[in-house]
Order: sequence, then structure tokens, then C-alpha cells
Amino acid sequence: MAAQLELQPDLHGSLKSSLGERLCVSKAVRDHHAKDMSYHPAAPPQGVAFVRSTEEAAATVRLCAEYGTPVIAFGTGTSLEGHVQALHGGLCINLGQMNEVIEVNAEDLNCRVQAGVTRKQLNDYLRDTGLFFPIDPGADASLGGMSATRASGTNAVRYGTMRENVLGLTVVLADGRVIQTGGRAKKSAAGYDLTRLFVGSEGTLGVITEVQLKLYGIPEVMSSGVCAFDALEGAVNAVILIIQSGIPVARIELLDDVQMDAVNRYCGFDYVVKPTLFFEFHGSESGVAEQAQMVRDITDEFGGSDFKWATRQEERNKLWQARHDAYYSAKALRTDCGVMSTDVCVPISRLTECILETRKDIDESDLVGPIVGHVGDGNFHVGLIVDPDDADEMQRVYAMNERLVMRALAMGGTCTGEHGVGTGKKAYLRAEHGDSLDIMRDIKRALDPHNLMNPGKVLDMTSTGKPLTGAP
Amino acid sequence: MAAQLELQPDLHGSLKSSLGERLCVSKAVRDHHAKDMSYHPAAPPQGVAFVRSTEEAAATVRLCAEYGTPVIAFGTGTSLEGHVQALHGGLCINLGQMNEVIEVNAEDLNCRVQAGVTRKQLNDYLRDTGLFFPIDPGADASLGGMSATRASGTNAVRYGTMRENVLGLTVVLADGRVIQTGGRAKKSAAGYDLTRLFVGSEGTLGVITEVQLKLYGIPEVMSSGVCAFDALEGAVNAVILIIQSGIPVARIELLDDVQMDAVNRYCGFDYVVKPTLFFEFHGSESGVAEQAQMVRDITDEFGGSDFKWATRQEERNKLWQARHDAYYSAKALRTDCGVMSTDVCVPISRLTECILETRKDIDESDLVGPIVGHVGDGNFHVGLIVDPDDADEMQRVYAMNERLVMRALAMGGTCTGEHGVGTGKKAYLRAEHGDSLDIMRDIKRALDPHNLMNPGKVLDMTSTGKPLTGAP
Repeated sequence: MAAQLELQPDLHGSLKSSLGERLCVSKAVRDHHAKDMSYHPAAPPQGVAFVRSTEEAAATVRLCAEYGTPVIAFGTGTSLEGHVQALHGGLCINLGQMNEVIEVNAEDLNCRVQAGVTRKQLNDYLRDTGLFFPIDPGADASLGGMSATRASGTNAVRYGTMRENVLGLTVVLADGRVIQTGGRAKKSAAGYDLTRLFVGSEGTLGVITEVQLKLYGIPEVMSSGVCAFDALEGAVNAVILIIQSGIPVARIELLDDVQMDAVNRYCGFDYVVKPTLFFEFHGSESGVAEQAQMVRDITDEFGGSDFKWATRQEERNKLWQARHDAYYSAKALRTDCGVMSTDVCVPISRLTECILETRKDIDESDLVGPIVGHVGDGNFHVGLIVDPDDADEMQRVYAMNERLVMRALAMGGTCTGEHGVGTGKKAYLRAEHGDSLDIMRDIKRALDPHNLMNPGKVLDMTSTGKPLTGAP
Repeated sequence: MAAQLELQPDLHGSLKSSLGERLCVSKAVRDHHAKDMSYHPAAPPQGVAFVRSTEEAAATVRLCAEYGTPVIAFGTGTSLEGHVQALHGGLCINLGQMNEVIEVNAEDLNCRVQAGVTRKQLNDYLRDTGLFFPIDPGADASLGGMSATRASGTNAVRYGTMRENVLGLTVVLADGRVIQTGGRAKKSAAGYDLTRLFVGSEGTLGVITEVQLKLYGIPEVMSSGVCAFDALEGAVNAVILIIQSGIPVARIELLDDVQMDAVNRYCGFDYVVKPTLFFEFHGSESGVAEQAQMVRDITDEFGGSDFKWATRQEERNKLWQARHDAYYSAKALRTDCGVMSTDVCVPISRLTECILETRKDIDESDLVGPIVGHVGDGNFHVGLIVDPDDADEMQRVYAMNERLVMRALAMGGTCTGEHGVGTGKKAYLRAEHGDSLDIMRDIKRALDPHNLMNPGKVLDMTSTGKPLTGAP
């Protein structure tokens, strides 16, 4: 189905009468929902529905199903592989107004939130409970969006990803039915794991409207360390040994020399321009001290130097600013350029090799691209600073990205550790999954037979937009 | 389809010519594969195929598909809810001869095994690597079976269940196609989480032939403790506070007074006959000491007494023997009786209430049933010691089980924390999952349209045994 400019008049009328001013079809609002933070081209929806409840989301999806209109769920628009572009037109359902923390079960270390609650909002809400939600993908993303994309980030090495931290979901299916998956129990063996099926399905199987999340006690002590290495190899090998030693670090981030240079320029820091590891330790006072000493012994062994250390919160924040500002400092390396952000994840035994080959590849491709990684998980990012209007450069960017993916797959890794598939990684799923891809398509067809849920993302299906009923 | 006594002659011939002596149709072998360790009635398959490779399993499943013959995967037969009974006849595929550890990636803390490798076999194999696989459901189950049933057990409170510890699978689908899911990378956001879909699907979506598993470094120090309480309530409340405090205990097991009495009689121990907690701590020397002290402080607060402590392996084994022999010591409470084992899992805040009400219910039902629990997860078991020929008693057993499940569901829990659905918990899935159950059926239909994979387990489908081709 070719994307249309306007919603069908009858659908528009029905949505307007149920949502009133919360159905928007102005160009400004549609353009604001036309893309995520990625380099992928914008594609505006025909309208945007700002829903306020699961029931409203369900009624909206049901109407779209009747008219064969695609539905794209939208949280904060901070995804990185073209997840929200309305490639086939349709209605964008913005869940930002579903921003209520429904309940916090402090005794059970879990909570239930509406999908539009962001991770920072949740942590602010939790402040007085002594609990926190650790998953931190960088952006202040919505927890529905983080579930839909199976987000992870800096804390995943200790706390896992959204895969491990979502206990249950409320989902609006393609025909408007509402289901609950999972629940409040810590584990269950009662039937198929639908929760994990929807986590990471990127809105292609349904619209997530509520999320049940694990919570953790705020550690008694948190401390941070920074350590530079003469060679990338030493830094990555230190990480490998730290992980293999079972030291329960909360964060291990790598910034390569290109990134450290960018951070110094952008933030006015005077870090040595070398591959640098950032650590965070969570635990009791003695536990943290023990972890830190063990890490220090390992980094010393691999040529680590310029060790900095911080325990008080302001000092820790200052230390981590270099990591947090990685994206904007990289972007500032070239004026009027965008960031083409890509990520892969490999078994940690291959991480050194994969990062070194990738660094060489970026440099030989005459591209500017810092490497930043959640290296404790074998996951790293390349942020290529590109001029999107330079066709030759973009060609080199696409070629480099493809080589990166194929390198990771050849090492037993995955084409994306945390950004997701969207449109950007679709082409590589056959290489990664083989015939499993057909099973994913079978499941998509079973749950969304008319391919109306975020069509064109994750999987290419044959048809889009066939009405469920005789509606025009 | 009614169960038939014999395989169709053509199918028998084809299987015989490919498997030779490894196709068995003798009554003795069929009876040996007719049931698991549960109280559910036996139902022998028409034959048993002892396959030796994924290719052989695939060829066997393909043949069965052609003839519309059900396929039941069989590991060690140690499941507890009627998972392997051939309710509709068919061919049992025994994976016990697929018992090769394919590779150990020590640097990446993972390994790949054939489905028939048992957990003890794997840990024996790993002995010299400094690594171990922690999931311990009690029985020396096969890792394929543990994956298929989403097993967990005593270590799950620290290391998670099979859900968290399976990285990838090789699966033979209903039509004989072979797929690989997941892989060696620690995390991935590349498409639908098929691994988690097959984990816990109990052979109803495909036959698992290989498993990629996470491994862990053997802790520097392991120590164990035992502590008795005057009241069940004190014991469970102590557990709740230990979990909420974030103390990373490796095991917390509860044995109630009925179980402790049984253990004393069976093993000749002289434990006080009171609700008792068994602990295990893993970590560095100082970490373990710190954990143990924190736990001791909490158990003191809740009236714990008779604290015993062990660090050396033989002493630890002796301490844990009471827990390990729980099943057989319970069984020995009545002669010529069987054990009807059931389990539920609730949010930990409701655990005290749920266990106390259940204890009262068992006693008022005039049944003998110790309670043993992986209480750190909110999961507990009732082992009812029953005379299966006593219809009145069995009626009380079924009624008690149903009340137990409904009690757990009313508290936000699940009808099974770890035993799985099999046939025993099928009736409760609608109450637990509501309309989600229809989605599970949609997925089952998409992957196994003719309901040939372990039919009658987890989900009731409308038809069974329609041939895929025109074969008789």
C-alpha cells in the first residue's frame, strides 16, 4: 500500500469524535512524529492520536483495523534505527500522555507503569522508596518504548536488559483486543513466554500500554573509576578478564581515543587522549572496595594508567559526564553533520579483534567515527559523523556498516546488541537468523494477519493495509 | 484422534530403515516412556526413537509429519505434570543418546550441549574449567528437558531460571525444518525472541536438540547455614526481608515442620521439628562473611534459633542432605503411597499468607503434605502423600490443588512457578492468562498447524493428527 497523505474521512471522523483535540493531523505534529533520532529518512504519519488509557488505545487500534490503516506506536522518538517512521502512512499512536506510575510494590521489588512513563520520571517517583530502575539506554526514553525495543545500556552488564527486567505487559493487539502477559510473580512456568515475545517486537505485534518492571534497592555505596590505556587492546583485554573473573561491576564503558578527544573539546576536559575505561561499582562499602581493588589489579596488569576515582555523587557525575556527552561531543566533531549510529554485539572473547578491525575499517574508509561501548556485554557503538548530503560519503558509511555487521556475525555475534532492527538492520536478519526468520514471519502473520502494526519494521511482509472488514 | 496401539506400517518401515535397532516398539520400552515422575496416568507411545543427531531427529519428525503421527520429546522423564504422556499415541523421541558437550567457550562463559546432556554430566565435564552451570531442579534432568519446561530450582534466586540462562537453541520444527535461535552474544535486539518462546513450550512447538547455556565461575567461597523458627510466619518474613535487602543469597529454602519431621525419620537426623530455612552463600571470603552476618541479623530479628553453619564441602553436603532428600523422606511418611507434587509462585509480599493458608488447608483436608519452598522466589511446593487407589482421598487432593492454584492467582501469582503445565495445570491457564491464552493458541497453530508436537500438553487444541500430505 502506498502511503496516503490523509486519513480516510470516515476513520478521521470516528477518531475525532472519540479523541477530540487529541487527534492531530496538522503538518507540524505529523512532522514531529515522522522520525526517530536516527539518520533514516523521515516519513510522517497521516495523523497522531494522543491516547490517555489502554481502552482508548484499544478503541483507536480497532478503528484503524477496520479501515486497514497502519498503526505506529510512539514513545519519545529516541530510537536509532528508523523504528517510528510511517513508511506506509497510517496513524501514529503517541503514548506520552499515558504517564502514570500505576503502582509500586516495594516489598516485591516491582512496579507497574503506563507505557509513556520515562525512565527518569520513574526514578524520580521512586526517590523516597530506596528503590531504583537501573536500565539506562542514554536517552530519557519511555518504558513502553524501551520494552518494545528491548533496550539496555550502561547498567546492563550488572542488571540485564529489558528482556530480564520486564515482568509483564498490557498489549493492544492488531484487532484491538487487550491482553495481559506475565504478572507479579518473580517466575512462572505457566505457558508460552508472551512477555518476552513482545519485548523487542518493536510495535510490530501490538501496542504496549502498560509495563510491569523489576526494581532494585539503591546500593549502599556507588563508586566510579576512570582509567586510560596506551592501546585499545589493553583496555578491551582488561574488560574481558574482569568479566571472566565474575566481578559484579555495575558499568564498564569504553571510549576510544577519537571519542576522548571529542569529549575534551566539547566539555573542556583534559583527559589524556587514549582509549579509556569508565567503571561503576555498586554494593556495600566493603564489597565496593573489594571490587574496585580487583579491577585495579587487572587494569594495572593490562597497562592501565591515570586512574581517577570518585565516590561522592557530584564527583561521580563529573566523571561520567564524558560518557554521557559522548553523542553530542561526537556530533560536534564536524559542523552541520549528523550522527549515523550503529551497534553490534559479539562474544566477549572476540571483542578485541572486532573493535580493532572496526577502528581500522573506519579510518581506512576515511570516515570520522568514535567507538563507544558497553564492553562488558561485548556490545559497542560506532557513531559516524556524516554529511547526509554527501552521496559518496554516505556510500562509504553504508558499506562500512555492512562490513561491521558481517564481521560481528562471522564472530558469532548479532547485528544489533541494543538499538534494534527498525528499518536499518532488516537486511541482515536472514544472515543472522537463517530459517528462524520464517518463523518470526509466521508469528507476525498469526498475530497481525493484515500487517498493520508498524509495517515495514523488523520484517518485510508481503502485504500491507488490507481492511479487516468491508470498510472503505 | 484416538491413540493407536501401533505405528502405521509404512511409517514403522521408514523409521526402521533409518534408525534400525534404535526404533523400539517393545511393550517394555514403550511403558518406560509412558509417564514422567508425576501422579498423572501413564500413556505409552506407539514407539520410541533413540536419535543421535539433530539431522536424525529432523528426519524422524519429518516422517511423523507426513503420516500425521504425534511426536513427544523425552529427556529423562523427570517432569512432574504429565509432560511426556502419549495422550494421543505417536512416536516418543528419546534424546538421551544426544549427550555430547559440543563446545565450552570458557572465555565467553557459555557452552553448547546436545539436548540429552544432563546437568550433572555438564558439571562433571566442566570440573577442570573453574566454571559451573547453576540451575538445579533436583532431578538430574537433561538440559533439553530443562529448557523445554523452563526449569529452575534452588539456585534460581541468585542465578535465575532457564529463561535467563539459555542463550540459544537448535529446534526441529513440526515439519522437520531445523532452526537456530539466539546465539553466543550476551544480548541482542535483532528480532523476535524465539529462544524465550521455545523455553517453556514443553515440546509443543518443536523438539529442542541443542542448547547454548550461560556458565558461571565457581565461587571462591561457598558456605551454608540452617536456622529453625518457632513459627512458619517468622521464617517466611525473614526471607522476605533478606530478599528486599538485596542480599545476594545463592539459595534460601524453606522446609516446614512436617517436612523436617519426615527428614529426621528418613535420614536419622535430629533437627528440631520446626519450620527451617536452609541458606547458601556464594562469593569472596569477605563477601560471604558479610552476607552471612546480614542474614544472621535478620533471622535473629524474626526468632530464628539453632543456627548451624558449614563451609567445608562435606559439611555443606551433610547440611543440605535434609533438603535434597525432601522428596523421598516425604514419600516414606506413608507406605505404598505416591507423591502428588504441585507448585505455585506468588509475589513475595503474599508468601507468608499463601503458605499459612495452604498449610491450614492441607491439614483441614485431612491430607499428609509437607511444604518445601524456593521461598526466595515466592515459589513453594506441596508434596501430598497419597494413595492413588483411594478415590475419596484423590478427590480431596484435586480439590486442595485447585484451591491452592486459585489462592495463588488471587494473590497475583502463577499456577506453576517451575513444574510447568503439562496436563496437570492446563485447566488453570484461562484463569491465569485470560485472552492471552488465545494468542498462545494462535502461535501454536502457526508453528504446528496439525497439532502433532506433544499434543494435549499446555494447550487444548481442536484437532490432532491430520496428515500433512496424502500419506495414509
